[in-house]
Amino acid sequence: MKALLCANGTLALQECEKPERRGNEVLIRVSRAGICSTDLEIVRGYVPGFSGVLGHEFFGHVEEADDASLIGKRVTAEINCACGKCDYCNKGMQRHCPRRTVIGIVNRNGAFAEYIAVPRENTIVIPDELPECSAILIEPLAAAMEVLEQITIGKEQSVLLVGDGRLAQLIGRVLLSEGISLTVAGKHQSKLDLLKRQGARTFLPDRFSPSPFDIVIEASGKPEGFVRALACVKPRGTIVLKSTYAGGFQFNPSSVVVNEISLVGSRCGKFSEAIGFLQKYKPDFSYMISARYPFSQALEAFEKAKGKGVLKVVLEME
Amino acid sequence: MKALLCANGTLALQECEKPERRGNEVLIRVSRAGICSTDLEIVRGYVPGFSGVLGHEFFGHVEEADDASLIGKRVTAEINCACGKCDYCNKGMQRHCPRRTVIGIVNRNGAFAEYIAVPRENTIVIPDELPECSAILIEPLAAAMEVLEQITIGKEQSVLLVGDGRLAQLIGRVLLSEGISLTVAGKHQSKLDLLKRQGARTFLPDRFSPSPFDIVIEASGKPEGFVRALACVKPRGTIVLKSTYAGGFQFNPSSVVVNEISLVGSRCGKFSEAIGFLQKYKPDFSYMISARYPFSQALEAFEKAKGKGVLKVVLEME
Repeated sequence: MKALLCANGTLALQECEKPERRGNEVLIRVSRAGICSTDLEIVRGYVPGFSGVLGHEFFGHVEEADDASLIGKRVTAEINCACGKCDYCNKGMQRHCPRRTVIGIVNRNGAFAEYIAVPRENTIVIPDELPECSAILIEPLAAAMEVLEQITIGKEQSVLLVGDGRLAQLIGRVLLSEGISLTVAGKHQSKLDLLKRQGARTFLPDRFSPSPFDIVIEASGKPEGFVRALACVKPRGTIVLKSTYAGGFQFNPSSVVVNEISLVGSRCGKFSEAIGFLQKYKPDFSYMISARYPFSQALEAFEKAKGKGVLKVVLEME
Repeated sequence: MKALLCANGTLALQECEKPERRGNEVLIRVSRAGICSTDLEIVRGYVPGFSGVLGHEFFGHVEEADDASLIGKRVTAEINCACGKCDYCNKGMQRHCPRRTVIGIVNRNGAFAEYIAVPRENTIVIPDELPECSAILIEPLAAAMEVLEQITIGKEQSVLLVGDGRLAQLIGRVLLSEGISLTVAGKHQSKLDLLKRQGARTFLPDRFSPSPFDIVIEASGKPEGFVRALACVKPRGTIVLKSTYAGGFQFNPSSVVVNEISLVGSRCGKFSEAIGFLQKYKPDFSYMISARYPFSQALEAFEKAKGKGVLKVVLEME
């Protein structure tokens, strides 16, 4: 089969062995996969030593499984593959299992390939009524919804979202759907306009002189976003951190201490919550798809995904 | 009067005007003042442009006040002098008033002087039964107790304190008094032994290979403490940040995001809580006082306070 391999920061579309199922794994023929900022950051070195197939946002159809009722089903997969035995797993914290592998990120091949094998317990059947553009966004939408799993936002609280990219768009959509009054500070007018149409107040950096906010969600994917979030949060306020990237920045936590700020790291969320959201609100996420490429043009797709103003770039495997 | 002035990072004991009361201020003849790590950091540049009298841990006797019943009373002062009118003040968040001055730290002369004038509402009468070594620690003890105002620590949770210095000693004392099982990672055997005698498990860095902790309190006063705290906290755990210092360090928040860590900045606390603690537990804090200097030797006292293994150094004004 063909797969997009990443080794030492270099991408190559290569012919590889089709994966074999191990244990209770399910073999999926990948249909579509989305390129995430994390994929771009891994190529830039965010996961030192990463070597393998990238890709963790996808859906496909089950080709082999112990459970015959799964064959042919349209599925995606929860990306954290847990051991199922440790204290974290026993507490329902599989996403934090210290022995986990993570599809396309940590010690497990990802979905930028014609086939992927994933544990049965990670396999999620996608309801038939969900259109393709929603099905492909289940993983990042779950990550967006994790914010509301971790913090409670009162209707009277002021909320700033820093960033207007792929993940920020989904976070904005979730918060606005929940009736939360939202301000967005972004860098791209076209992306800000998408959130403005949904009811957000939006600002470009040079026109932004904010009153401080009770809650700031940092999803810019850039170190500058952290600095902006700190500058925009009220004393005793909360900053939710969603960005992961290679590199870092010079930081002095004194202002966090003096202003008694809370910072809350936030990563993956529950796929069931994301599917529930898609079924409840039936969002038309076609605006999130900036471009589609046949898998044979995966390298061009990666170049496209790096561009300014670009949201989700989709690889089509079949 | 004599006062210890700090300007451009240089300390000098000088003859100055005795302060005049403004508005409802109370004039206090300073009796004792403690040197805090924040004082040392201000000299190192932690508060850019600071120029004035340092010192915010003190007690003295009221010499002048509108309220005659205060005259002669032994008092200290809550260090955050709020405007009393803004939204923060109206919500009871005077310590976060954006227009506040802070005794010996922000735009207000401090207590390393023979006299200090402070607002009436900041003046706290010290109960007669509290010994001198407790009276002088009310401010840092309140800061230590702020941790328990901000987070709830369950009896089953594992807690690591990073640091064994002045503030860390008080935090350790508070947590141990509340029956919390505590591990301390410090650098000075003699200081660790003080906490060990109170029931803490203690470790020097080279002997420390911890299982991760539910809660880590970073009170080392050093950037390395932050790095250690991050390395020692469980996924979904909480780090309380107590250290303020000049300078910074290279930081990538990705591990905070991936492990969904919460960081909680923590600064000053309520003096009433600290006094309540002192009355309830009657701790003998004489072990916290490493040295006493007559005010005329304030510069020597500062040198002493920088030394390893040294806890509180006290200036005696009378």
